[in-house]
Amino acid sequence: METALDFDRYDHIRPILWTGEALELLDQRKLPFAVEHVACRDSDEVAQAIRDLAVRGAPAIGIAAAWGVVLAGRAVEADDGAEALSRLEPALQRLNAARPTAVNLAWALARMRRALDGVGADWRQALEREAQAIADEDLAANRHMGALGAALVAPGSGVLTHCNTGSLATAGFGTALGVIRAGVAEGRIGRVFAGETRPWLQGARLTVWELQQDGIEATLIADSAAAHLMKTGSVQWVVVGADRICANGDTANKIGTYQLAIAARHHGVKFMVVAPSSTVDLDTPDGGAIEIEQRDPGELHGVGGVRTVAEGIGAWNPVFDVTPADLIDAIVTEKGVVERPDAAKMRALFG
Amino acid sequence: METALDFDRYDHIRPILWTGEALELLDQRKLPFAVEHVACRDSDEVAQAIRDLAVRGAPAIGIAAAWGVVLAGRAVEADDGAEALSRLEPALQRLNAARPTAVNLAWALARMRRALDGVGADWRQALEREAQAIADEDLAANRHMGALGAALVAPGSGVLTHCNTGSLATAGFGTALGVIRAGVAEGRIGRVFAGETRPWLQGARLTVWELQQDGIEATLIADSAAAHLMKTGSVQWVVVGADRICANGDTANKIGTYQLAIAARHHGVKFMVVAPSSTVDLDTPDGGAIEIEQRDPGELHGVGGVRTVAEGIGAWNPVFDVTPADLIDAIVTEKGVVERPDAAKMRALFG
Repeated sequence: METALDFDRYDHIRPILWTGEALELLDQRKLPFAVEHVACRDSDEVAQAIRDLAVRGAPAIGIAAAWGVVLAGRAVEADDGAEALSRLEPALQRLNAARPTAVNLAWALARMRRALDGVGADWRQALEREAQAIADEDLAANRHMGALGAALVAPGSGVLTHCNTGSLATAGFGTALGVIRAGVAEGRIGRVFAGETRPWLQGARLTVWELQQDGIEATLIADSAAAHLMKTGSVQWVVVGADRICANGDTANKIGTYQLAIAARHHGVKFMVVAPSSTVDLDTPDGGAIEIEQRDPGELHGVGGVRTVAEGIGAWNPVFDVTPADLIDAIVTEKGVVERPDAAKMRALFG
Repeated sequence: METALDFDRYDHIRPILWTGEALELLDQRKLPFAVEHVACRDSDEVAQAIRDLAVRGAPAIGIAAAWGVVLAGRAVEADDGAEALSRLEPALQRLNAARPTAVNLAWALARMRRALDGVGADWRQALEREAQAIADEDLAANRHMGALGAALVAPGSGVLTHCNTGSLATAGFGTALGVIRAGVAEGRIGRVFAGETRPWLQGARLTVWELQQDGIEATLIADSAAAHLMKTGSVQWVVVGADRICANGDTANKIGTYQLAIAARHHGVKFMVVAPSSTVDLDTPDGGAIEIEQRDPGELHGVGGVRTVAEGIGAWNPVFDVTPADLIDAIVTEKGVVERPDAAKMRALFG
């Protein structure tokens, strides 16, 4: 089942580097024109980097937060894991509050808490091992999902993706972009389109650049050109990531995903969500229960520091939306694929 | 039936000014931060201004082209209208080629040709009278459409619009924005949302600014947030303009309109097209026969002169899309309203 991919080929973009002393985050606000890292030396700097989008993408946020806990551990004294946990609580809560929608953040922090269970004086090593495990498992999951997702795509297909779900958003290889990488390598995917993804332009700034590094040609489109593109017959699948997948399969993802899913169904284009099982939140019954992060309306007032909108104009800037399960053809995780998801199928795989 | 509106209130934005010597076009590339006019002294400068989007919006393009013919008339010698027509032919063709999708351009040029029929030595005056009539009739049509369209909207509604269809796109008052102006004045419309309209950001740069001049508060959204907005129940109508309306009601308009129409139908939100009857092209049977203008992919490579996309990235940049008649609830023209348009209803009103 696994694709015979040369994964090292895709290993040149490393958004999250742990140096042993600091967490170096590839500053995604400056891409694609500057490849610079932000060094975080304590957990609050990590929380700030998450809040400010220096690091973004649900899995990457979780991994960065895990390293943030390691850094927090440097700043407290404790004799064992239990004591460390209580001392780390304020830092854990600040990390958790950095972004509200992505469940991977809370999931990673819960793992870091559990890693302290019953641990003695070597609790700092336990935290470091767990953070590394979270990162390693994410990379392995992405590689496996790439194969599982690509297998769903008929040879010669075109795909459209949204936002950035690649190496930059994960420990490496990517979720939806991992499927696209695998699908291109296998010759199943012949055309790749990426939406700009306003307001933050993750598609324009990050996705097409990231694919370019691999020699994969992607064509950029305005977000609002997607339905017209589908009508031309050029795409057979929309492939996206997820920030939270509910117990019934409803999926929160970057604003615009829901609109793509509606357009896809209208045209008979299939819709695939690709995310590690850490994104599945069985405690959230459906999309109505998800808190949708609202960001600064100022993000709609310009681009790259250039103001495009007159002073005094209001804007509505929800970062995510919810795609209901009935518009999703497949949810691909490292644990397997759920086709036409519903609560029973989700429980069967993840319960 | 007419709204008792103080139309003069809405008269401060004049995109097209004929000075008697030159055509002064409000340079829409520089709005909202600079209110500057481009002076066109011959018809090729008008064609260039249309091509470069200094003037835009289907009705405004038609009016500007009509004045372009007046300017062309200054540059040729002829004893009567028939001779003038043959001498003006090259200029007419260059004007006609400036933008391919908007039918108002060809329509306005056809009117200017007809104005020369059977005219003697005073053919230049005939051209000037006709250009002024085209502009005056457009303004009157917009005011009438405002009343007709607003009457369709239930009190307390929210509306979403796309691109710019206001004074800036017409001789004044606007098409879809005219309906919004009338609807707000009548208290029928309580909430106005405007999509940014990538790549040229007509919504962000022009529409919200134009409404702000009238004291109408509009909330800007990313184009891809429209479906999520509809799901919140905040909008009851999508109100847009048109660049060409086919014999069966299929409508070409700014890229993204089709995607909005699909999302609107999905949510039970109504969809209204507002355009003067000059936009109706009974010679184009349906949307499949419309040439969709493709513009420079570079328009997707940045914003306001700031590059946001890496070098070497391809883009697909269709300027328009086609919304099929069956997704349209009402086509509003100055001749009347066609609800749930089809070829028979269109023929009955416009045939």
